[in-house]
Amino acid sequence: MTNPTPRPDTPLLDRVCCPADIKAFSDDDLKRLADEVRSEVISVVAETGGHLGSSLGVVELTVALHAVFNTPTDKLIWDVGHQCYPHKILTGRREAMRTLRQQNGISGFTKRSESDYDPFGAAHSSTSISAALGFAMGRELGQPVGDTIAVIGDGSITAGMAYEALNHAGHLNKRVFVILNDNDMSIAPPVGALARYLLNLSSSAPFATLEASLPGPLRDGARRARQLVTGTSGGATLFEELGFTYVGPVDGHDMPSLLQTLRATRARTTGPVLIHVVTKKGKGYAPAENAPDKYHGVNKFDPVTGEQKKSVANAPNYTKVFGQTLTDEAARDPRICAITAAMPSGTGVDIMQKRFPNRVFDVGIAEQHAVTFAAGLAGAGMKPFCAIYSSFLQRGYDQIAHDVALQNLPVRFVIDRAGLVGADGATHAGAFDVGFLTALPNMTVMAAADEAELVHMIATAVAYDDGPIAFRFPRGEGTGVEMPDRGRVLELGRGRVIREGTDVAILSFGAHLHESLQAAKLLEAEGVSVTVADARFSRPLDTDLIDQLVKNHAALVTIEQGAMGGFGAHVMHYLANSGQLDGGLALRVMTLPDRFIEQASPEQMYADAGMRAEDIAATVKGALARGRMMPRASAKPRAV
Amino acid sequence: MTNPTPRPDTPLLDRVCCPADIKAFSDDDLKRLADEVRSEVISVVAETGGHLGSSLGVVELTVALHAVFNTPTDKLIWDVGHQCYPHKILTGRREAMRTLRQQNGISGFTKRSESDYDPFGAAHSSTSISAALGFAMGRELGQPVGDTIAVIGDGSITAGMAYEALNHAGHLNKRVFVILNDNDMSIAPPVGALARYLLNLSSSAPFATLEASLPGPLRDGARRARQLVTGTSGGATLFEELGFTYVGPVDGHDMPSLLQTLRATRARTTGPVLIHVVTKKGKGYAPAENAPDKYHGVNKFDPVTGEQKKSVANAPNYTKVFGQTLTDEAARDPRICAITAAMPSGTGVDIMQKRFPNRVFDVGIAEQHAVTFAAGLAGAGMKPFCAIYSSFLQRGYDQIAHDVALQNLPVRFVIDRAGLVGADGATHAGAFDVGFLTALPNMTVMAAADEAELVHMIATAVAYDDGPIAFRFPRGEGTGVEMPDRGRVLELGRGRVIREGTDVAILSFGAHLHESLQAAKLLEAEGVSVTVADARFSRPLDTDLIDQLVKNHAALVTIEQGAMGGFGAHVMHYLANSGQLDGGLALRVMTLPDRFIEQASPEQMYADAGMRAEDIAATVKGALARGRMMPRASAKPRAV
Repeated sequence: MTNPTPRPDTPLLDRVCCPADIKAFSDDDLKRLADEVRSEVISVVAETGGHLGSSLGVVELTVALHAVFNTPTDKLIWDVGHQCYPHKILTGRREAMRTLRQQNGISGFTKRSESDYDPFGAAHSSTSISAALGFAMGRELGQPVGDTIAVIGDGSITAGMAYEALNHAGHLNKRVFVILNDNDMSIAPPVGALARYLLNLSSSAPFATLEASLPGPLRDGARRARQLVTGTSGGATLFEELGFTYVGPVDGHDMPSLLQTLRATRARTTGPVLIHVVTKKGKGYAPAENAPDKYHGVNKFDPVTGEQKKSVANAPNYTKVFGQTLTDEAARDPRICAITAAMPSGTGVDIMQKRFPNRVFDVGIAEQHAVTFAAGLAGAGMKPFCAIYSSFLQRGYDQIAHDVALQNLPVRFVIDRAGLVGADGATHAGAFDVGFLTALPNMTVMAAADEAELVHMIATAVAYDDGPIAFRFPRGEGTGVEMPDRGRVLELGRGRVIREGTDVAILSFGAHLHESLQAAKLLEAEGVSVTVADARFSRPLDTDLIDQLVKNHAALVTIEQGAMGGFGAHVMHYLANSGQLDGGLALRVMTLPDRFIEQASPEQMYADAGMRAEDIAATVKGALARGRMMPRASAKPRAV
Repeated sequence: MTNPTPRPDTPLLDRVCCPADIKAFSDDDLKRLADEVRSEVISVVAETGGHLGSSLGVVELTVALHAVFNTPTDKLIWDVGHQCYPHKILTGRREAMRTLRQQNGISGFTKRSESDYDPFGAAHSSTSISAALGFAMGRELGQPVGDTIAVIGDGSITAGMAYEALNHAGHLNKRVFVILNDNDMSIAPPVGALARYLLNLSSSAPFATLEASLPGPLRDGARRARQLVTGTSGGATLFEELGFTYVGPVDGHDMPSLLQTLRATRARTTGPVLIHVVTKKGKGYAPAENAPDKYHGVNKFDPVTGEQKKSVANAPNYTKVFGQTLTDEAARDPRICAITAAMPSGTGVDIMQKRFPNRVFDVGIAEQHAVTFAAGLAGAGMKPFCAIYSSFLQRGYDQIAHDVALQNLPVRFVIDRAGLVGADGATHAGAFDVGFLTALPNMTVMAAADEAELVHMIATAVAYDDGPIAFRFPRGEGTGVEMPDRGRVLELGRGRVIREGTDVAILSFGAHLHESLQAAKLLEAEGVSVTVADARFSRPLDTDLIDQLVKNHAALVTIEQGAMGGFGAHVMHYLANSGQLDGGLALRVMTLPDRFIEQASPEQMYADAGMRAEDIAATVKGALARGRMMPRASAKPRAV
């Protein structure tokens, strides 16, 4: 911000550089420290943007955990990790927080390489219990690990993976702490029966908190009291059936209760224990409390008014284009339905949800189920659009292969956030989908070069009912191209030539078409005549187009917003096995490099990846230098 | 078999060609029909081999389901599908069953392309509830679908994916049937707290069965009675907490009870219902009842004695070599531990489990958790070997990418059943792991050419503690090579030349080295001098080796037991971007073809895939014919 708001007054926090510094704090001081940490979080995020609401919700919990447990020997594992700002502020990263989510700055999630206090990084949800259990069993087998604590939200705990971990922890019956951070809100209001179950538990709060602080025999009595007073069954909770001791619910903003509960539980626990903490997203900052959805992830904002800086959009947002176009198509075709895994607004299907609520399914954080549920819908004759971000689609890979591709069921995969995504960094990069989908028989895979192409690809997916089809597109704004009134059904496996040249061909798959055209202009200025083509499909490949490009140019460069082993690999496979490399071909394959790309703006990340227009131009020149000097053979093969 | 046992006498079954034929059967006839179906199953599997125990366990259930529901309008979905033999016998495939699991024969699992009575194929577990819910919602949206019924075992239902589906079904609250087939046994004895929970439920059987057959008000009374008599909580069951009506347990071999329960439930259900059916694996065939583990999957056998035909092994089995070698290594290194997802004997870790029970973790059918649990163990300082079949590893892809590769944690992935696997067919083929793993930064990927190489790769994985490492090997017997006393730590990213020639090079990754050497012999007989190299690593690539092979031969052929986009793709990527294709290279990339390969013996499947030694030789000759006639350029690039 040009005029940074003055930093808050934080006398206690100023004395804390790591959790050891708060061990001598009185309980009252810890309460005040939490207030200061809250001010600091608001001050940081106002300056940098980031995940505000979830971090504000766990301020007291974070302070209490660091006061009661001995990190980093004790392993504190934050599920998803987007609520870790108070944790980072207390673990030596207070000043670094001012570079949050920026290039060369601090990550918006926990990250092992960043701090010893981050024993297990995250960003995708529902991994923390598995990891904490792994650390705990490492301790049981002699490794220098103290207690292990997973902090997981009420949305994340509904994922199958978390359930698998709870089930295994119950079976192993070793000391491990799971803190259920129940703010009754994941990103959107939670779905599923477990959510209702948690809601019921919360209503019995006073008695349960009492129970937790009582010794064994009295505790049984307290439970019975709860049964009598509240009318609940009073028997085992779901977690107890899974082998956990259940403690709670406890008010996650009441520091004395939190400290008392954590201390008592820590002192007495021998096996797996679940501590149910009820918190409020955005706690202590009125704008965030009142609109937790809008303050989940925020831009820079004015800490006084809560007003967020709006970035000026030059072109429609891909997500919105998808949501609106799908809704239009759904109005014409009653077989269209949509599936999201707890991200209705993130994927844009909320637009269709408003108009056709019966045809939009939010399955919760459950990508495995989402894909096979979509396969069932397809088997029944529907046209399911399964909208999952590229990196989260990795969660459903077996279901895509085994339930969809192998059975050739017409599920439509809508892959937003393909390629590099900016501030969320490497964990959210959509790097691998082209490779893992294009390898699957029966699959059709498209990538949109711009927002108009996205509209055509949606129309194509609506029309194509003979097998699975996927289309990918990047995060953020489109390129500002003219938009069609209605999508056109594309011919399967046909690319298009965008500009014709004579020296070299660039074959782009997806949204790097823009950079490819820029590269062509740079090259033209140097006297190199460039053809640029948009492949549209990585599967089936447009082999006619590839043949023509190879035949008529001295060099061919492919480019895609994805990892090695994707589009370019399939082009090479075709060229090699059709003998078109035999006589020499100055071929270059541009992909993401062989490493994870750290957070920055998408432009900075693609620069880091060596994929700017200048990089493409340089690659083209290198190829062309070789291509021109090599003889081109066109002889037919002879028998040996 | 050379002397087939006479077929059983089946007067009722002889009148059944499809489920409509049993609608007029009396309940007594249905009971007798079940007995005949059981004889038929035994007779078939004695002749063909296959999954005997699980099919015998559901004979009565299958007959009852087809008697009460109207398939194929009603969608009956068998989880995993290996228990579907009675279903296939009753749905027009009785004679075809004699070709079970053979080339051009009938599948060992349900399969959409095989019959209208198979609305959703399977083979991997825990997908049925998701699929049934998808069909049910298709019905709610107007598709011509009747009732939808998932039949799922007590092992399969513990997977996170099944839990996700139960949770979503409870939320949607539409009519859908889940039959929990509880034989207290998945492949090995079940693990996890849910298993204990089911065990507790079963013990109250008489009262619960009674409940199921009573009208609403009386039923509440019966539940209270159960509470009073059994001392269980009497409150909600786990399934009821998830939004399901719970019915059962019912004896799955008592036809009158089964029919009564299914009819009553079908008549009264409006929302999701779970019917808890208790069955015995191998029921009605003494050898299978007494040793359900051994009769899970059987070879051909003598139906009178139960004696299975043993195939004579010429070489040690890869799985056993892995299990024994890991145990030896674990004896020397206390940091070694192993993880399996419900397949201790299938993966060979049962050998280590006997000697070091504390260091072997069976997490149940929970691949997602297995991988991240292993990541936690690695974070704690252990050396986890996560042993999961190639096709099942697809279930943990996001965890491999996000929790292991991105954090560079030294988890060792042990990938058995890589490549084509035989009678289990396309669902179990390990086709995609090379591609999806080699695309991941930080990952090291090896493939064993033979069982001695496997021993070295285990030693290499024990020694390598700097990041994740994976090694793959095929199903079944090794090649009979001499075995080392102890594994040798391989140099990372170094292949080896097996035989030297001058004309052409074959670069093999993994267990097709044997066929490559055979191809070399065939070619030698035709005067072609062949180098054969074993790449050992697809990541990091041995670029020195590749450079040498390209420099010294007129053609290069790569081969791997996997899909396009794997090892060969990464070799091509290197060659293209290092300019080695510019001057011409007769390069051919042999992979599995671009389609799913149907069941047969592995040899037949590889023949189908065009990957026999003869096919390699033909590919080599084609490449060489071109390679010899093309000029090889060695000029340096010049600037444009």
